[in-house]
Amino acid sequence: MASGGHSGDLPEVLVLGFPWVLPSLESQFSNRFQFLKPSNSDLPLLQFLSSFAQSARALLIPGGGIQLTSAILDCLPALKLVVTTSSGLDHLDLPELRRREIAIAYAGNLFTQDVADLAVGLLIDVLRKVSAGDRFVKQGIWPSKRKFSLGLKLSGKQIGIVGLGKIGTEVAKRLEGFGCKISYNSRTKKPTLPYPFYSDLHELAANCEALIICCGLTAETRHMIDRDVMVALGRDGVIVNVGRGAIVDETELVRRLIQGELGGAGLDVFENEPEVPKELFNLDNVVLSPHVAVLTTESMVGLTQLVAENLEAFFSNKPLVTPFEDYSS
Amino acid sequence: MASGGHSGDLPEVLVLGFPWVLPSLESQFSNRFQFLKPSNSDLPLLQFLSSFAQSARALLIPGGGIQLTSAILDCLPALKLVVTTSSGLDHLDLPELRRREIAIAYAGNLFTQDVADLAVGLLIDVLRKVSAGDRFVKQGIWPSKRKFSLGLKLSGKQIGIVGLGKIGTEVAKRLEGFGCKISYNSRTKKPTLPYPFYSDLHELAANCEALIICCGLTAETRHMIDRDVMVALGRDGVIVNVGRGAIVDETELVRRLIQGELGGAGLDVFENEPEVPKELFNLDNVVLSPHVAVLTTESMVGLTQLVAENLEAFFSNKPLVTPFEDYSS
Repeated sequence: MASGGHSGDLPEVLVLGFPWVLPSLESQFSNRFQFLKPSNSDLPLLQFLSSFAQSARALLIPGGGIQLTSAILDCLPALKLVVTTSSGLDHLDLPELRRREIAIAYAGNLFTQDVADLAVGLLIDVLRKVSAGDRFVKQGIWPSKRKFSLGLKLSGKQIGIVGLGKIGTEVAKRLEGFGCKISYNSRTKKPTLPYPFYSDLHELAANCEALIICCGLTAETRHMIDRDVMVALGRDGVIVNVGRGAIVDETELVRRLIQGELGGAGLDVFENEPEVPKELFNLDNVVLSPHVAVLTTESMVGLTQLVAENLEAFFSNKPLVTPFEDYSS
Repeated sequence: MASGGHSGDLPEVLVLGFPWVLPSLESQFSNRFQFLKPSNSDLPLLQFLSSFAQSARALLIPGGGIQLTSAILDCLPALKLVVTTSSGLDHLDLPELRRREIAIAYAGNLFTQDVADLAVGLLIDVLRKVSAGDRFVKQGIWPSKRKFSLGLKLSGKQIGIVGLGKIGTEVAKRLEGFGCKISYNSRTKKPTLPYPFYSDLHELAANCEALIICCGLTAETRHMIDRDVMVALGRDGVIVNVGRGAIVDETELVRRLIQGELGGAGLDVFENEPEVPKELFNLDNVVLSPHVAVLTTESMVGLTQLVAENLEAFFSNKPLVTPFEDYSS
């Protein structure tokens, strides 16, 4: 059933996809906004929008699962604000939004700490086989087999950060505490940070034992971690990805992992989520995570608040709390 | 078949249990030492020792799996050195060894970094549900169920270190990189370290969201983490144990985890290893690890070398490389 129609004079917020924060927004702010949900309707999306969303000025959309295409925008003549619940914006058509003069509010740096925490967790997990050990014990194998396979030392390892923005910097800070030696590749050298900079990603890979992918997905970063980078990283090298799946050539990654041409991988993101290559399911040196880097109880409380504040600001003609302004990236 | 008898004039090293490093010691140092292995014999241990180990001056014993009792020592009249492959010495009867004037060489600080790394890995894993997420993806549940449960934030958490020795200090250093607030309980206050000291363990627990147990097992620390400490920690509290299983009242821990009276646990050690309470096998907020905190490829290379160096030193009447001298603890 469609949730169209007006509840008094509440401002209307169109919701596409299934944002994690929607239930808490609805429970806390249903007296402030009216949420219009095409997902509750049997109508095809574009037909729903053309029928019920003509006056919608604000749109809420999660970071994954649905692309905000021109076809959708064409059905939303009144749209002036997109609020997205992610920090990455690869699901938005930025030039198109700019052309239409639609503002964007996003999660900003809300998730930085959580993503960095998980990146380090995945790295430790791959090297020290934490998930595989948990399986070994929980399947009752320990008493009979006794010896579990040896892990690899983290402390002192050469770690390459791919993308030294906010998240990458936090990952580096954490890994310094483990005595790791940090270097990085990024669009630009960060003169205020003490780590060696490699303008060439292959050179970074050749000088590191693990790469941690912390950048966003853009035309430039798509499949940036390709065969050549993996060759440079070497057969003992480890890849951790908390950026976006398509930054890595996943087919090549899977092939090398299966054939033992990479040391291991810790992946929170995939090219075709939630589909994950099944060939990885039996590998103890591969830790798979269902795109949860930003998902903590605490971050969802913060995000609910932030989305509401951005919507409030917009409907009161005040400046957005976390506007996205760098349309060039 | 017994491995008794002499290979030329090589000094004899009796081996009890199954030290991880034995294969690499044998492959690298079989021209330096003769390893006498009761485990290869069908004879009962004490009978083997009385028949074949009367002249053994040095003994190699792992840190887990076998207790070095007076009954064993009574069968070894020539024994002057125990080399153990662990840093914890709870499997040795220290007063008895001192009385018999038997020296001890141990692993010293060789494992400090690896143990601290795993402690942090277990904490992240419990809070961020890394192993549970890996299971969720590898069992193919993600595409149909879509949403995995939310984790808990690590960054900013109040973490209590139980036992601020070498390992505890390294854990604290790592967690500072995550923006955690560290406090600790220890036998003595460490005036050179900046963290708040709680002489009362219950008070520490009451002021923390997670406890990381980094101390050794002694008469004083046995079941130190008891019901009262768990109550003080609270129903959202997390316990990570990389010390020894018996420091925790395991029965009480299991009961509270099952009944939801604790937030979670990351356990590398257990009271009756390798037996682990099966009631924990289905809990997503419990990460179980088969006592591998010290086990990395790199540490085993270092340990093989260290054991050989201690044996060389002993048989050449030189000072041990890593003697254990604090028999009081």
